[in-house]
Amino acid sequence: MKIEHLISQIHKKNSFLCVGLDTDLDKIPKHLLSQEDPIFAFNKSIIDATHEYCVAYKPNIAFYEAYGLEGWKSLERTMKYLNEHYPEMFTIADAKRGDIGNTSTRYAKAFFETLNFDSITIAPYMGRDSVEPFLAFQDKHTILLALTSNQGAYDFQTQKIEGQELYKKVLEVSKGYANAENLMYVVGATKAEFLKEIREIIPEQFLLVPGVGAQGGSLQEVCKYGMASNVGLLVNSSRGILYASQDEDFADNAALQAKSIQQDMEAELQKLNGI
Amino acid sequence: MKIEHLISQIHKKNSFLCVGLDTDLDKIPKHLLSQEDPIFAFNKSIIDATHEYCVAYKPNIAFYEAYGLEGWKSLERTMKYLNEHYPEMFTIADAKRGDIGNTSTRYAKAFFETLNFDSITIAPYMGRDSVEPFLAFQDKHTILLALTSNQGAYDFQTQKIEGQELYKKVLEVSKGYANAENLMYVVGATKAEFLKEIREIIPEQFLLVPGVGAQGGSLQEVCKYGMASNVGLLVNSSRGILYASQDEDFADNAALQAKSIQQDMEAELQKLNGI
Repeated sequence: MKIEHLISQIHKKNSFLCVGLDTDLDKIPKHLLSQEDPIFAFNKSIIDATHEYCVAYKPNIAFYEAYGLEGWKSLERTMKYLNEHYPEMFTIADAKRGDIGNTSTRYAKAFFETLNFDSITIAPYMGRDSVEPFLAFQDKHTILLALTSNQGAYDFQTQKIEGQELYKKVLEVSKGYANAENLMYVVGATKAEFLKEIREIIPEQFLLVPGVGAQGGSLQEVCKYGMASNVGLLVNSSRGILYASQDEDFADNAALQAKSIQQDMEAELQKLNGI
Repeated sequence: MKIEHLISQIHKKNSFLCVGLDTDLDKIPKHLLSQEDPIFAFNKSIIDATHEYCVAYKPNIAFYEAYGLEGWKSLERTMKYLNEHYPEMFTIADAKRGDIGNTSTRYAKAFFETLNFDSITIAPYMGRDSVEPFLAFQDKHTILLALTSNQGAYDFQTQKIEGQELYKKVLEVSKGYANAENLMYVVGATKAEFLKEIREIIPEQFLLVPGVGAQGGSLQEVCKYGMASNVGLLVNSSRGILYASQDEDFADNAALQAKSIQQDMEAELQKLNGI
């Protein structure tokens, strides 16, 4: 998907919400467990109920891999359903991969071609030749981990290299990678005040922001410091939407949650548009 | 697998060779392509031919994921075959995963339980709470990326934080993680001279060393600087063994290559034993 298409969807729907599909058999409504593929059945209901209010879906690959072959089937079905019924949706494989050239190309094929995702999350630790194989795919997007929302982010990401935090070094250095226009970045919402300095380094690149809601970040803070003239934000919510209810009315409750976030986003977009 | 079992296998076989199963349909002998599961057929032949000369197998997960559902089936079959026929083998999921707690636990279950691997490679960028969920599994091993063998390693890994390279910081900090005794580290052989300083930080932890052979590292250099009193090394070879021949005699040629490396390793182990 071209970035212009994503931006136009954001303005059309007045939303930059990404729904994270962290689908967990221990948490989905019990009545779905008797279905042939409960994970897909759950995802389908969630997608049908929330698609009006969001512009992106982000399956968390770990949740599918944990169920082995069956999980992989559910992921394939979910992606096929999204591609067929909601081709306007931006899809993110939250895979956090990263390996050397030869192997990165394999991962890129797995997610960009076999599963037809629009984007994938990637860890930066192995550097340029682990990232560029992903960037080489046209109209596909590589979302590099910069500053994550967990406590462990302070172990290395915020440590200073020649006076500059590692995560800023990741932003600076990756700007010089081939096809860097296909880069986006993960920046955790629990550190919204850091977004101001991040925007000095990458004024317009899209940021995928986890950690709003269950993980404690504020949408208003994220928008205040992180919104760019092209919006430049995808804010993710997973558990708050998926598990708003664990009863038969789960999809209706998911829709209500998604709509509530979309309305807050609409207000933020109006500020951007000077309304 | 307990670490003592791995060490006893190393001494029994006079080998610390790990065979990397980077199985690629474009490179395996053409006559296998007509089989129902060519990837598994190839892996089975390679394993049967090389098991005498090695102590570990390391499927590179990207190569399986690239083929979607079929690839995942081949991986499951390969692990089932290894666990049933060669339970003494140390198995490594070369997955380079890394995510926050909740999600890491999912990946750990996928590889340690569903697929029954003994170990998994993990990227350190997200810090403590992305690594400890893996370390919590008893007799399972977490192989943290420290210094990789690719050019991109110089982007971040060798950059200095308060006078200490990031990869050394990773070694230092991770020593303090809960269940750190379950840690091993990836250290590329192309930087063998770095092993001396690495051993000052982690004298006895096992190192998984890629990059001997095709990637240009020297076994003798690796052993000189990296061998510990408990050996503490697993040296990987993938392409040099797998694709020694692409004809019908591929398994025989793979065995010859593996045997040749094993003999070099035997000589190094004799030095350790003062023979």
